[in-house]
Amino acid sequence: MSGRHVGSQSILLERPPLILQTASAGGLLEQQGPLGKALDIALSDEMNHENSWEKAECQMVLSTIRRVIQKSGLDTAQVQYILAGDLMNQITATGFAMRDISIPFFGVYGACSTMGESLQLAAILVSGGFADYALAEASSHFCAAEKQFRQPLAYGGQRPLYATRTVTGSGAVILGHEGKGRAKITGITTGRVVDFGIKDANNMGASMAPAAAHTISQHLRDFETVPSEYDRIFTGDLGQYGLQLAQELIERDGFQLEDRLSDCGLIVYDRESQDVHAGGSGCGCSAITLSNYIIPALEEGKFRKVLFVPTGALLSPLSTQQGESIPGIAHALVLEAV
Amino acid sequence: MSGRHVGSQSILLERPPLILQTASAGGLLEQQGPLGKALDIALSDEMNHENSWEKAECQMVLSTIRRVIQKSGLDTAQVQYILAGDLMNQITATGFAMRDISIPFFGVYGACSTMGESLQLAAILVSGGFADYALAEASSHFCAAEKQFRQPLAYGGQRPLYATRTVTGSGAVILGHEGKGRAKITGITTGRVVDFGIKDANNMGASMAPAAAHTISQHLRDFETVPSEYDRIFTGDLGQYGLQLAQELIERDGFQLEDRLSDCGLIVYDRESQDVHAGGSGCGCSAITLSNYIIPALEEGKFRKVLFVPTGALLSPLSTQQGESIPGIAHALVLEAV
Repeated sequence: MSGRHVGSQSILLERPPLILQTASAGGLLEQQGPLGKALDIALSDEMNHENSWEKAECQMVLSTIRRVIQKSGLDTAQVQYILAGDLMNQITATGFAMRDISIPFFGVYGACSTMGESLQLAAILVSGGFADYALAEASSHFCAAEKQFRQPLAYGGQRPLYATRTVTGSGAVILGHEGKGRAKITGITTGRVVDFGIKDANNMGASMAPAAAHTISQHLRDFETVPSEYDRIFTGDLGQYGLQLAQELIERDGFQLEDRLSDCGLIVYDRESQDVHAGGSGCGCSAITLSNYIIPALEEGKFRKVLFVPTGALLSPLSTQQGESIPGIAHALVLEAV
Repeated sequence: MSGRHVGSQSILLERPPLILQTASAGGLLEQQGPLGKALDIALSDEMNHENSWEKAECQMVLSTIRRVIQKSGLDTAQVQYILAGDLMNQITATGFAMRDISIPFFGVYGACSTMGESLQLAAILVSGGFADYALAEASSHFCAAEKQFRQPLAYGGQRPLYATRTVTGSGAVILGHEGKGRAKITGITTGRVVDFGIKDANNMGASMAPAAAHTISQHLRDFETVPSEYDRIFTGDLGQYGLQLAQELIERDGFQLEDRLSDCGLIVYDRESQDVHAGGSGCGCSAITLSNYIIPALEEGKFRKVLFVPTGALLSPLSTQQGESIPGIAHALVLEAV
């Protein structure tokens, strides 16, 4: 058997898929951030040589996928599945990019948790022997997301200080069993939808914190382990205030986190020198941090074992207009040094 | 090993998951159609006791999932995963329904191919031993979809005769290995994105036909088989004219279809007596036809083996406004009598 269900929401991957290669792309602000130098693709500007932000994101997705395949040394035909998604309505940034890539495609939507969802499903495909190689990807674009979810940028609206900034960026990962792994995936905990009733569409951190806390606590219970087993636990994009809330909720569940909980939104930007309010967010936030920070740290021996927990807020502008609160979800993956 | 990759896009499921139970819901027009009597849940009207079409769809998703679990005789906690999606921006009909169901959730977006995508991933989870039971679901709502993709209904716009009508309906399937199966899934072919350059957002049939043809021809090549091996090949929602196009394209690939190719959009409605133009469409179209027609026919011995091929058009209103053509995708599953 290639995997075993443990506890109520988790799988222990008995044939851990290797993370063979990663690639990332980022916009101008991301290039200036702490992970900017490690970007594989640096966008010239938010338009990325296209005539709309949406097409810019689509091209970014395409370039990132092509780059990770190229870096892996595989032929495109060897990659048997792509699992990917983004924040655009009908995930068009991803769907349209797939026109130029002839690989079977599973489109996923997990809002900003997409890198967690696509990576879990890719791990299942590879670990189960259904694919030799599978590619997981996720992307977001600041301008396209603001226009769609909040206000047109030209309107010049002020975002509150507790708001996060959607990352313009993407990350792609190739999983397989053959070859030199940069890290491996040994376990996964798939999230449930959790809604604590937050209705402020600028307050993504607070909306997602309960889901992050639920998944992390459930992960620890399912694997009968404790936070100190992990060098670090990375939530996806809670930002400064959401992270504090998640920390409090997990500790209320009886787990001592000490200083182990971090958030990709506080790694991808430098809040001291960059005007990003509470931190970074969007699918690209955890995707870039995974590719440019977490995997390299596992590879260099800085970390031995981490929990990677992309977080998503499953709202739409219409659901907010209809008075609905914001459901959150978070998916956890155990990443270990090879 | 639980599955074996065959050809370039397919998996032979060596431990075929059983379809243990199905359930379906439908609106008024669907109740009057040929499959109406077999609906598990008949909506009172398009509002489904809610105050918006979107909330009506969300409640329909919730009821259908609860009903299939109840019919299966399982406890909710035994169902380890839900894979589901819909047509709404950010798949909110599904995401919001998940607030009331505490089961780990993978949100998928494949437009009207969603029932194929969710069912393939559920089959992989169960066949690979990652889950004892997994639930796949898909839904669509005529009013919510028209409002979002085309025109507000109150505008009273005329749809061209080659347009299809989005089904108000949903279907859910529970897969597992233990228990009495109503049918089984023995193979899957995951689609690539195919775009022949159609730009008319009313002409979904023509947009999706090339993807349907590509997946079906590739399936036949991957499994080294011929159409006559199947009692019937069901595309998801091409409608009358899309189906003719797909038939022509598959025959150009060298396969003799005779009268084996059918479309769920021509089964869910009676085009003679119901005002649906070219037929039915939407995620609910293939989902209801699977639950109310295909599975019962396999169970009753009317069919021995069929190919079920939900089809999706990956456009958004914004992509159309930006002058993009419409990419299509189609996912095929081999369904056999137990």
